[in-house]
Amino acid sequence: MRRLIHHPLCPYSRFIRMVMFEKSLDFTLIKEDFWLERDNFILLNPSGQVPVLVEPDEKTFICNVSPVFEYLEEITPPELSLMPKNPVDKAEVRRLIAWFNEKFYHEVSNALLTERVWKRMMQSHYPDSRVIRSAIGKLPEHILYMTYLLQKRDWLVGNRMTAADLVAAAHISVVDFLGNIHWKNSQNSRAFDVIREWYARIKSRPSFRSLTIDVVNGFTPPLHYADPDF
Amino acid sequence: MRRLIHHPLCPYSRFIRMVMFEKSLDFTLIKEDFWLERDNFILLNPSGQVPVLVEPDEKTFICNVSPVFEYLEEITPPELSLMPKNPVDKAEVRRLIAWFNEKFYHEVSNALLTERVWKRMMQSHYPDSRVIRSAIGKLPEHILYMTYLLQKRDWLVGNRMTAADLVAAAHISVVDFLGNIHWKNSQNSRAFDVIREWYARIKSRPSFRSLTIDVVNGFTPPLHYADPDF
Repeated sequence: MRRLIHHPLCPYSRFIRMVMFEKSLDFTLIKEDFWLERDNFILLNPSGQVPVLVEPDEKTFICNVSPVFEYLEEITPPELSLMPKNPVDKAEVRRLIAWFNEKFYHEVSNALLTERVWKRMMQSHYPDSRVIRSAIGKLPEHILYMTYLLQKRDWLVGNRMTAADLVAAAHISVVDFLGNIHWKNSQNSRAFDVIREWYARIKSRPSFRSLTIDVVNGFTPPLHYADPDF
Repeated sequence: MRRLIHHPLCPYSRFIRMVMFEKSLDFTLIKEDFWLERDNFILLNPSGQVPVLVEPDEKTFICNVSPVFEYLEEITPPELSLMPKNPVDKAEVRRLIAWFNEKFYHEVSNALLTERVWKRMMQSHYPDSRVIRSAIGKLPEHILYMTYLLQKRDWLVGNRMTAADLVAAAHISVVDFLGNIHWKNSQNSRAFDVIREWYARIKSRPSFRSLTIDVVNGFTPPLHYADPDF
C-alpha cells in the first residue's frame, strides 16, 4: 500500500491528501514532526519538508508538494485528472497552486502556523505577535482576489473543480482551524460570503471531510471548523 | 513572435530563457523592473513576479516560472523535452527545480540579489550585511549537496542534461555574476572542482552564452563570469 508522510496541519500535506482521495488512491498516513529534523527523515528528503509519498515498493520516494502532485497526475488515468485539458488552462491551475503554496503560505498560512504551532512544538521560541498581526492583515487581500476569480466562474479555474480549488481549500482550512477566519462579522462580508459558498461546496466533499477528523494535541479548532453548513 | 517579460538578473527568468533557447523557440525579451510594482504589470501578473510569457496572439499570458516551464514542455515536441520520460525521474527533476527555485533562492541567490541589487535599484534601503554573510555561508552546503548528486551521475538527474541542470546553472550564474563564488581558493576546493567541471559544460552551451551578454547598469561581473574555461 502507498504511504504518505505528512503532518496533519501542513497545508501542502492536506492538499496532497485531498488529491489522493479525489483520485480514489488507497494510502496510509505516517505523521512526521518535520521540525525535529530527524536524520532519517533528512536522508529521505534533504529539504526536510512534508509531504513525501512512499510507493508500495518501499524504495520509491517522491518528495515535496508539486513533484508529488504532478507525479500523481501522471500515473493516474486521465478521467481522474484534477487539471483542465488545455495547456493554457493548466498553466492557470499551476499559477494558482504556486500562488497558494508560495505567496499565501509565506504571507498567511505558514506565518500563522510558525508562530502559533511550530514554535510551540519546538518549545524554544515565543510567538511573535507582529508576524501574527501581519498574517491576519494579509488575509483579506487574498480573499478579495479569490472573490474576483470566483465572480467570473464557479470554481477558481473554469466551471469544473480543479487542483487549484483543493490547494486553496487546504490553506484556508489551516487558517480556519487556527480560528483566524471570521466568516460572518468581517469588514469584507460580501467577499467572505462568496468564498464561504465556494468553501462550503468543498467542505461537503469526502476528500475534505477526511482532513477534519484529525486531532492535533493541544489545539482545539472552532466549532464551525468541520461543519459544511457554517 | 513570442515575448518573455523578464529581468536579466532574475534566476527564474534566466532558467526560462535557457529552456526556450534549448527548445529552439524564437522570442524577444522585454525587461520589467518588477520591484516598481507598476499597475499594468500587476494587472498582468498579480504575484508581481517575472517571468511572464506572452504568446504571439498577444492575449495569452503564462505567469511565473514553474507554470511557464511546464507549459513549454507541453507545447513543444517530446524530442525537445528537458525532462526524463519516466514519472519517477520526472519527479526528481521537479524536486530539484523546487530545491533551487525555493530553497536556494531564499537562502542564497535571492537573498544576495535583494541586498546587493534590488535594494540599490529601489534606492530606499541599505544592504543588510548579516543577510549577505548568511547567504554566502549557506552556499557551500548547496555546493556539497550538488557534488553528492554529481558523484553518481554526469548530470544532476541521470546521464542526460535536464531542466534540473538549467535551473541550477541559472541560480549559480547569478551568484557568480555578483562575484560571490570563489572557484579556486575555497575551503571545499574538491567539491567546487566537481561543480566547476559540470558548470563549464553548461557554460559552453549557446543557451547559456545568450545570458552572459546581458549588461546590467551599475554592475560589472568578474572577469571569469562569461568564460567557459574559468
